[in-house]
Amino acid sequence: MRRLALSLSLVSLVAGAAVATAAVKPDAAIRYRQSAYTMIGWNFGPLAQMVKGEAPWDAAAFALRAERIAALAPQLPEGFPAGSDTGAKTEAKAEVWKNADDFKAKMDDFITQAKALAEVAKGGDEAKMKEQFKKTAGTCKSCHDGYRSKG
Amino acid sequence: MRRLALSLSLVSLVAGAAVATAAVKPDAAIRYRQSAYTMIGWNFGPLAQMVKGEAPWDAAAFALRAERIAALAPQLPEGFPAGSDTGAKTEAKAEVWKNADDFKAKMDDFITQAKALAEVAKGGDEAKMKEQFKKTAGTCKSCHDGYRSKG
Repeated sequence: MRRLALSLSLVSLVAGAAVATAAVKPDAAIRYRQSAYTMIGWNFGPLAQMVKGEAPWDAAAFALRAERIAALAPQLPEGFPAGSDTGAKTEAKAEVWKNADDFKAKMDDFITQAKALAEVAKGGDEAKMKEQFKKTAGTCKSCHDGYRSKG
Repeated sequence: MRRLALSLSLVSLVAGAAVATAAVKPDAAIRYRQSAYTMIGWNFGPLAQMVKGEAPWDAAAFALRAERIAALAPQLPEGFPAGSDTGAKTEAKAEVWKNADDFKAKMDDFITQAKALAEVAKGGDEAKMKEQFKKTAGTCKSCHDGYRSKG
């Protein structure tokens, strides 16, 4: 039993900060959502490069990154719990929580379009992928316009 | 065409910093890998709580978070490109690149065990899930011991 207790305390150490089932500290939520956006941006960047012709077209790489974005998108909403409007440095405007229904609708748009992008990318049709990429990027901008204060 | 150019430049803005297909700046890679670890930790924390009995057992929530961890794990390796041993503040030791084969083996262990955890969790057997959770946590610790300098 002592060994189990020890191994579990190591687990806590390993698992680190955040706990989403219990009350979440605002700072942890802020770090979490920023991490999700960082990962989405990391995968979105190469897609933008391909769409703009700044990088060689690679349908398989495009599909993989689109799939990752589609899986990451639904993980964003839990990063905006009530009370996480202040704490660590955040670019999220107070409107996120004031206009919660509209924010949720815009977030859902992104989730939906990102999922569609991953689906379209499976087909490998370059023109359709580029078109759906732009639709998806539009949902990013649409949300950022009202809810992100870019420092 | 002007409209397309404009919309694509917005895309670049939205996509933000990182570009993984072209040369990646060390700082971007460091931020990316830290984000991946933050997201993994965010999902790992509630599992640890359930395993320790600090949170109510919820097999569905466990399975969802295990699935997320399994999908995030294979996204870690690209966060350690050559040259990203220095730049933004990082806890990655120089040994990551010096002992690249061993680091890769340990990373692969984590990826494998995390995938197994997601698989086991689909079955919903609490004892098996707890057992596989501890195996997975062991692979975290095994890698952190040699390759992470905890500040």
